[in-house]
Amino acid sequence: MTTQPSESPRPWHDTAADPADRVRALMDRMTLREKVAQLYGVWVGIDSGGEMAPHQHDFADAALDWDELVRHGIGQLTRVYGTRPVDPVTGAHSLARSQREIVANGRFGIPALVHEETLTGLAAWRATVYPSPLCWGASFDPDLVHRMGARIGGTMRRLGVHQGLAPVLDVARDLRWGRVEETIGEDPHLVGMIGSAYVAGLESAGVIATLKHFAGYSASRAGRNLAPVSVGPRELADVLLPPFEMALRAGARSVMNAYTDNDGVPAAADKTLLTDLLRDTYGFTGTVVADYFSVAFLHKLHGVAADRGDAAGQALAAGIDVELPTVDCYGEPLLAAVEEGAVDTAVVDRALERVLRQKCELGLLDEDWVPEVPDEIDLDDPESRALAREIAERSIVLLQNDGVLPLSPRYKVAVVGPRADDPGAMLGCYSFPMHVGVHHPEVPFGISVPTVLDALGEYHEVTYALGCPVLGGEDADIAEAVAAAEAAEVCVAVLGDRAGLFGGGTSGEGCDVPDLKLPGRQEELLEALLGTGTPVVLVLLSGRPYELSRQASRLAAIVCGFYPGEEGAVALAGVLSGRINPSGRLPVGFPGENASQPSTYLTAPLGRRSEVSTVDPTPLFPFGHGLSYGAVSWDDVTVADPAWPTDGRCRVRVTLSNTGDRTTTEVVQVYLHDPVAEVARPVQQLIAAKRVEVAPGATEVVEIGLHADLTSYTGRAGTRLVEPGDVELRVGTSSARIVATLGCTLTGPRREVGFDRVLAPDFS
Amino acid sequence: MTTQPSESPRPWHDTAADPADRVRALMDRMTLREKVAQLYGVWVGIDSGGEMAPHQHDFADAALDWDELVRHGIGQLTRVYGTRPVDPVTGAHSLARSQREIVANGRFGIPALVHEETLTGLAAWRATVYPSPLCWGASFDPDLVHRMGARIGGTMRRLGVHQGLAPVLDVARDLRWGRVEETIGEDPHLVGMIGSAYVAGLESAGVIATLKHFAGYSASRAGRNLAPVSVGPRELADVLLPPFEMALRAGARSVMNAYTDNDGVPAAADKTLLTDLLRDTYGFTGTVVADYFSVAFLHKLHGVAADRGDAAGQALAAGIDVELPTVDCYGEPLLAAVEEGAVDTAVVDRALERVLRQKCELGLLDEDWVPEVPDEIDLDDPESRALAREIAERSIVLLQNDGVLPLSPRYKVAVVGPRADDPGAMLGCYSFPMHVGVHHPEVPFGISVPTVLDALGEYHEVTYALGCPVLGGEDADIAEAVAAAEAAEVCVAVLGDRAGLFGGGTSGEGCDVPDLKLPGRQEELLEALLGTGTPVVLVLLSGRPYELSRQASRLAAIVCGFYPGEEGAVALAGVLSGRINPSGRLPVGFPGENASQPSTYLTAPLGRRSEVSTVDPTPLFPFGHGLSYGAVSWDDVTVADPAWPTDGRCRVRVTLSNTGDRTTTEVVQVYLHDPVAEVARPVQQLIAAKRVEVAPGATEVVEIGLHADLTSYTGRAGTRLVEPGDVELRVGTSSARIVATLGCTLTGPRREVGFDRVLAPDFS
Repeated sequence: MTTQPSESPRPWHDTAADPADRVRALMDRMTLREKVAQLYGVWVGIDSGGEMAPHQHDFADAALDWDELVRHGIGQLTRVYGTRPVDPVTGAHSLARSQREIVANGRFGIPALVHEETLTGLAAWRATVYPSPLCWGASFDPDLVHRMGARIGGTMRRLGVHQGLAPVLDVARDLRWGRVEETIGEDPHLVGMIGSAYVAGLESAGVIATLKHFAGYSASRAGRNLAPVSVGPRELADVLLPPFEMALRAGARSVMNAYTDNDGVPAAADKTLLTDLLRDTYGFTGTVVADYFSVAFLHKLHGVAADRGDAAGQALAAGIDVELPTVDCYGEPLLAAVEEGAVDTAVVDRALERVLRQKCELGLLDEDWVPEVPDEIDLDDPESRALAREIAERSIVLLQNDGVLPLSPRYKVAVVGPRADDPGAMLGCYSFPMHVGVHHPEVPFGISVPTVLDALGEYHEVTYALGCPVLGGEDADIAEAVAAAEAAEVCVAVLGDRAGLFGGGTSGEGCDVPDLKLPGRQEELLEALLGTGTPVVLVLLSGRPYELSRQASRLAAIVCGFYPGEEGAVALAGVLSGRINPSGRLPVGFPGENASQPSTYLTAPLGRRSEVSTVDPTPLFPFGHGLSYGAVSWDDVTVADPAWPTDGRCRVRVTLSNTGDRTTTEVVQVYLHDPVAEVARPVQQLIAAKRVEVAPGATEVVEIGLHADLTSYTGRAGTRLVEPGDVELRVGTSSARIVATLGCTLTGPRREVGFDRVLAPDFS
Repeated sequence: MTTQPSESPRPWHDTAADPADRVRALMDRMTLREKVAQLYGVWVGIDSGGEMAPHQHDFADAALDWDELVRHGIGQLTRVYGTRPVDPVTGAHSLARSQREIVANGRFGIPALVHEETLTGLAAWRATVYPSPLCWGASFDPDLVHRMGARIGGTMRRLGVHQGLAPVLDVARDLRWGRVEETIGEDPHLVGMIGSAYVAGLESAGVIATLKHFAGYSASRAGRNLAPVSVGPRELADVLLPPFEMALRAGARSVMNAYTDNDGVPAAADKTLLTDLLRDTYGFTGTVVADYFSVAFLHKLHGVAADRGDAAGQALAAGIDVELPTVDCYGEPLLAAVEEGAVDTAVVDRALERVLRQKCELGLLDEDWVPEVPDEIDLDDPESRALAREIAERSIVLLQNDGVLPLSPRYKVAVVGPRADDPGAMLGCYSFPMHVGVHHPEVPFGISVPTVLDALGEYHEVTYALGCPVLGGEDADIAEAVAAAEAAEVCVAVLGDRAGLFGGGTSGEGCDVPDLKLPGRQEELLEALLGTGTPVVLVLLSGRPYELSRQASRLAAIVCGFYPGEEGAVALAGVLSGRINPSGRLPVGFPGENASQPSTYLTAPLGRRSEVSTVDPTPLFPFGHGLSYGAVSWDDVTVADPAWPTDGRCRVRVTLSNTGDRTTTEVVQVYLHDPVAEVARPVQQLIAAKRVEVAPGATEVVEIGLHADLTSYTGRAGTRLVEPGDVELRVGTSSARIVATLGCTLTGPRREVGFDRVLAPDFS
């Protein structure tokens, strides 16, 4: 005779049990009210800040009744640290108090999952601001980005934060879009490689990475934020989705929908995308969270839902598990819709099961769970700063140089321009200072952010003049800058963007532009400086490439920093002075003269310069371009076996020899050219890139293994194909400077490949 | 005992027989060589002109062996009149001689089908140049366009021309595209309504209309000619295809493919488009002809075919029946591919059957067929000129007017600007003078084309100054124009485009632009004129809308003529002087300040101005806008039955009362607004428009019958739906000025509708 163990009164606390059973035990006991409470976030203090999300004040009900809410439980807490400037330890105590209330007041004692924005580091006061994603892309250094992700995750863990709303995996398609600065670049392989590294890093700390925005957002019409998207299924499959596929394999446990509609179907209501593709094809088992207010947008902006209950039902049915940032459609409107029978309880339970399973994984269903409360915490410790600097140093791109750089130490340097002495010039729109801090001007930055003027002053005798602000300005200020340039041996003009939200800046979310001219009077300032005859070095600190074609040939040098983060100025000064040998490569091309958007290097032949259009999209500085101070020769660029099995690998080798006197980094780039295919394919497409440091006098042999799956594309029938036939591997220093073109012949049967295909090269 | 009639030795000559039998009799006797000869055009003299087609000199084999060709027969003759300036009677004799040679040398005596460009009239020397398609759109007058089509067709018939390569039914999607001037506008209903009228007119003369470009061309990326297109199936079905559906019903017997690829699949190789949709769904039985060189482009530019034989095979399999303009892929490469077994003879026979059936319909298989040879012919007779003037008069759009117009007869007028005294300013890029004549500067225009200066001189004392050319120019010329303006009581500045091909102009095929600023120094000239204090009336003669937002508020009046044809200046002077009461309405909106492309009024809510983007696409002058000198009140705008059956009609009534003292034309425009649908729909979409002339003191009641099919759209499942529920009918004078919003409720079952749905309103 055996005795059955009596059932625990709270079986979901039983850590020895199967997670599915624990979740089921909970679900069986929950009322509908308690169930839906797990499916929304609550944003306390949404009304205290400025504009941080589209239509924030139209859609957020600021009058949250906390006491009522906690009776039913709360799925997520939104931006506890990232809504206003709070001291981290105070914030942690406040969060712990909230969690205890949630645990104590709900029938099941389930704490909330806490999420924050984390794109360039945790978006919290006093936390390290790392370089922007365009800088990660420019570094071509996934290992470093992995370390950054892990470090960000570690900080979040200690603060009791479980989920970070990053990375952005949208592939830049139109440089006019304000959120280009949040992307990793214009190439899906680069975005996927770097984005996956971020994901793996964050997840290695036990923190949930959130892939956004699934999918199509970056292709909004004319680069206008949230405008309709028109991309066909092939462009979606071959350009916009691969980074998500790569990052899902890297372990991402959450996905956020795109705000946009594609061909009329908003992503938040797109079952084909969020369920058929993401769940059934990709096998994703994590949660899908709504981009802020996007469930309500189905009713209010897209016009596909009759009311908020309908919006909730459609979003749930499509596959949005959690409404963010705060309870709205998934609250009373959803309850009413379920009670009326308009929404099936099965879709509620499906989302609930995913949410609870994730809470179970995080330990939030454990009986002994207690909130983290650090006694003290430095969110910007020296190790984080050093890492931020290292990424910045590897991400600065030297675009051109007539020899003026590195600057001679004896030079007297005029440092001018609106971005020369503003710490904000270093930071992207999802950094706390630019995202939230701007609404609290009385509160200090909370972190040290040297400016280019500060940092260059460490090396050179410098003078300073503003010239003009980012927007607007006075003739007298331009004249003052001209005078400063005239009195100096070299002029460093620091121009670019101010990151901001919804018109608060010249780049960033909602800060779209009609063309790519430098903002305000900055081009005029640059012309005035060039008129002095003093050599001008342009340092661009911006969220997107700008038109430099009218000045490039007259500039002594151009250095591009995008937003290099809190240590960015130190890195820039390092490059200008020669302490750092620049090694960044462009993740987005710079437009040529009279070019127009949208445009990308990743285009079929007729998307390039042609005899049949007067508009030439050839970039001034192409994707992958970047110079150094070194001298490395590329030799013996070969393919080991030009007969390449359609289910096998070929190996490309490059010998790099440093003939100069300083350590120099090359980025070996391999582009695929497929001369004949079922569909019009990009003339070139990056399939491998490897950053290689070469010591003076040293020779490095780079070997890159390329699986034939990397040649796959979506054919006429909509399936992904590896086809036999001739291809070229174009190995070069940029997409436009090809060192060697290696002919290969794919041999063997035509293969259909799927989500399980090889997505990355291997290196040895 | 009965005797069977003995078979005729040439049964295809038997006009009493069924056309299918006549065609079959021919096909049964033809060799493969003779078959393919029917599937291509021959362009004699392709090397004699300038650039008239993309890559013309790369792809055309100029060394045609006529004697060899005629032995096998010839499918089409290309642009006999439209390749170089030829006297029409001489041309007709030459054509007749060619046809006799073809008939005499081939075994079956089949003449060639002769095609010409006919967009703004037959593109031949000395032929009437009618207003451009944008003017047809601006007239909102299908009856008049029908008359024009019939008149063009009649001329063609008399010259022995069987097919016209018009109309262009591409819906304008990006105003930067050079071929916007060839479109009828940005709205599919307007394009379809006007385009169908052209088709019905041309076909009424027995001439084959050719619908182009099927489909997607106008959505090429960034408006760059031939660049890749990304439109989803819904945008294709709801925006780009409806004009083709309407024009097919109007009797068009030929369709030409788009050059572009959509989502990677070039139209010329797209069986889904050219066969599954066009043949199987639409039931089209005519011919599909290749846009010039587009079969070879499959190999050379799109990279989807391995060689020319492969290109031919793919094009035939997809459904391209005839290669134009001249024998290339469908010649030796196709023969070789068929003989190797790479191309199935069935696709050759399928195309051949269509080609021969059309020749049979045209009488070209009749034994008594002889070529037309007119003794004399006036291609620009007074009736044609009068019709060209009538269309021009109805197409001029008065965009704004502070009261300066009509010009007082006593005014001394300075007429300035690069378009003021150039006859070419009146003509679009597919007119003979701009398309071909420009390559023969020694040959006179061949038709009388008064300029604005000429025509205005009939009414006013005028002075003239160039100001600047269309591109470039000297300060001194601007100063001279300023002096002329200062000395006058009013200044009429005539600015705009020069139509041309592939860089030969500022608008036209291959003349794309990166932005919508006036070409060259024209904005600077306009500012200088405004600086004089003399009231400035801007007359715009252009192929696309331009940015006028910086000057509009300071201009006394703005009049837009697009390219109004050979009598356009007379019409313009009529409007300026007051002889003509303007009645045109914009078929394309004018961009607002800092707007960006692509942009169209036909967009879902998030494509409009929003809080989430700093770029505001609101047009300065919206689609449908246009003023007059009259005073007509709109009253009693009602819907007869607000309960609108999903398979029935509702009737909208508007009472127009002319309270002024001159006859005035209104264009009653009805837009559909559907607040909730399965997909994001355009906020407003034109579903009916009616041009109504109202005499002084008169009252006209306009009644418009709207079938519920006009509310249909492509739902989530990809089928076209009429859904029950609330909609609004917004009745107005433009897309932005809505006089009344009428609520209706569609009642009854949800319906799926197809190609047989009601596509047009009815009027009474």
